[in-house]
Amino acid sequence: MDYRIGVDLGGTKMLLALATADEGEVIRTKKVFTKAAEGPQVILQHLIESIEEFLSKEGLSFNRLEGVGFCMAGFYDIRSSRIVSSPNLPGWEMFPLEKELKERLRLPVIIENDANAAAYGEYIFGAGRGKKNLVNITLGTGIGAGIIAEGKIYRGSGGFAGEIGHLNVLPNGPLCGCGRCGCLESLSSGSAIEREGRLLLAESFPLPGAARDVDAGLTASHVFAAARDGNKEAIKIVERAAYYLGLALSFLVNILNPELIIIGGGLANNGDALFDPVRRYLNEAAIGPSGEMVALVPAELGEEAGVRGILSLLDEFLKGR
Amino acid sequence: MDYRIGVDLGGTKMLLALATADEGEVIRTKKVFTKAAEGPQVILQHLIESIEEFLSKEGLSFNRLEGVGFCMAGFYDIRSSRIVSSPNLPGWEMFPLEKELKERLRLPVIIENDANAAAYGEYIFGAGRGKKNLVNITLGTGIGAGIIAEGKIYRGSGGFAGEIGHLNVLPNGPLCGCGRCGCLESLSSGSAIEREGRLLLAESFPLPGAARDVDAGLTASHVFAAARDGNKEAIKIVERAAYYLGLALSFLVNILNPELIIIGGGLANNGDALFDPVRRYLNEAAIGPSGEMVALVPAELGEEAGVRGILSLLDEFLKGR
Repeated sequence: MDYRIGVDLGGTKMLLALATADEGEVIRTKKVFTKAAEGPQVILQHLIESIEEFLSKEGLSFNRLEGVGFCMAGFYDIRSSRIVSSPNLPGWEMFPLEKELKERLRLPVIIENDANAAAYGEYIFGAGRGKKNLVNITLGTGIGAGIIAEGKIYRGSGGFAGEIGHLNVLPNGPLCGCGRCGCLESLSSGSAIEREGRLLLAESFPLPGAARDVDAGLTASHVFAAARDGNKEAIKIVERAAYYLGLALSFLVNILNPELIIIGGGLANNGDALFDPVRRYLNEAAIGPSGEMVALVPAELGEEAGVRGILSLLDEFLKGR
Repeated sequence: MDYRIGVDLGGTKMLLALATADEGEVIRTKKVFTKAAEGPQVILQHLIESIEEFLSKEGLSFNRLEGVGFCMAGFYDIRSSRIVSSPNLPGWEMFPLEKELKERLRLPVIIENDANAAAYGEYIFGAGRGKKNLVNITLGTGIGAGIIAEGKIYRGSGGFAGEIGHLNVLPNGPLCGCGRCGCLESLSSGSAIEREGRLLLAESFPLPGAARDVDAGLTASHVFAAARDGNKEAIKIVERAAYYLGLALSFLVNILNPELIIIGGGLANNGDALFDPVRRYLNEAAIGPSGEMVALVPAELGEEAGVRGILSLLDEFLKGR
């Protein structure tokens, strides 16, 4: 009873982290690829097997575990302890996640939305240390956010707070995965930048230098590379994505007046090429006093933010019992 | 030492409310008209005189007061206890409000942004009773909001949270008082509707029925009246104002996932003519699970929301000391 496991389930993989109960130190992590189409029963079975395998490699038996923290992408309803739906995981509609996890694990379990867990991870261990009011944004294929308000995760009434990916920043803009048009995700996500980049290629715009080699298919990174090399069309794509992200962040800033916004996820690796224009547009659109006091910084924990956060929440839960 | 006073200072008037310490019951309210141009020193002097006069009419001496709760429009910085600025009150820039009030009153004083105090009033005594996560919106000449998160006022890091009037919902839209273009206030406030109505009159569009009599100058009420009477141009104005308000509320809903949005202020008196289209546009734009669970209701306390809220906060403050 002296180990814990944190799990972060996404659309294509799950990340497991083993931590000690004493120090809370993460001893080992493990990435397991999953097939979203298999649905919750198969994926959870896969999770249990992965945990057992993970433990046995460390020479540990299952009964050394004192709890599991589990976070995943999707709308987790804190009232019913069910997943309402998960955009990238079909078959989870109204899935009674807490009940199913507890039946399989027979251990204390806590469940959190993945964006909330990542925000908590950055807050406790990463770029948000020492701050009380912050928003942590994951900017990848999609766009998610977790809110820390007065030092605690702010979940809202159902558990659905922080859904900034579907702020409808350009009504009648590009079609979004959610069925609406012009959500932030359809304009500023990795997928959106990729879509615009492919359009350039299809129209035979030359992509210079580093972006020329797109054997494996064009991604947002190629567009950023082309923009760095001075390609005017690529620069426009990056500017537009940054503009709408800056605008959406101004909404967060006016509503929440956070002292810090952290940006992680794949796109954040582009550094100042992304952060500089986003800061500029954010400052233009935000109300003075709130805009002036907010800092915009890159995340520090990478893809471990979620498991680090959920392990910290699990620790608080186990201590508070 | 058995009475308290709550004060709500706005751009043209201040509302005073006298309450008992025992029951917290408001015994009497009083409205005092002020001239914003006089600046903070004169207005505060006016406040002290108004309090003394108010008390003497009740046969009470000043030393029967155990505290004063004060709320006002403007950016009140909770870190420095100063008013950073107040859009409708010139001369208050960086005014050390707490220090000045305490020097004049020599009593325990609490200070709050007026939108926060109104939200707290509706939360404790009005339309928000029994809810934990809500937003209270004041829809008048301007647009303000106060956020209740997990049963407490959410102020943000500086005290500036809830500034929804300047969400830039239509970049490059109409010029806003803040200097930007296309803020919510420039599209959905009473002033915005009035501006569009005056344009109609200037262009000689006929306003039917109730709206024909505009001796005292056209206001938003005339536009609503003309819309009720079927004037197509007036209907367009109301629809547009409702559309952008619904869109801005969808941002609040996606970010905060509140169970309730309360709308007060002058425009809320238009009832379903406002609420129905706002609800429709809100539901279209908000993310499913959060949009489905939020109710949109009229405020209950009218212009007393602010003083009721600040008196309740004062009570908690005095008890907690």
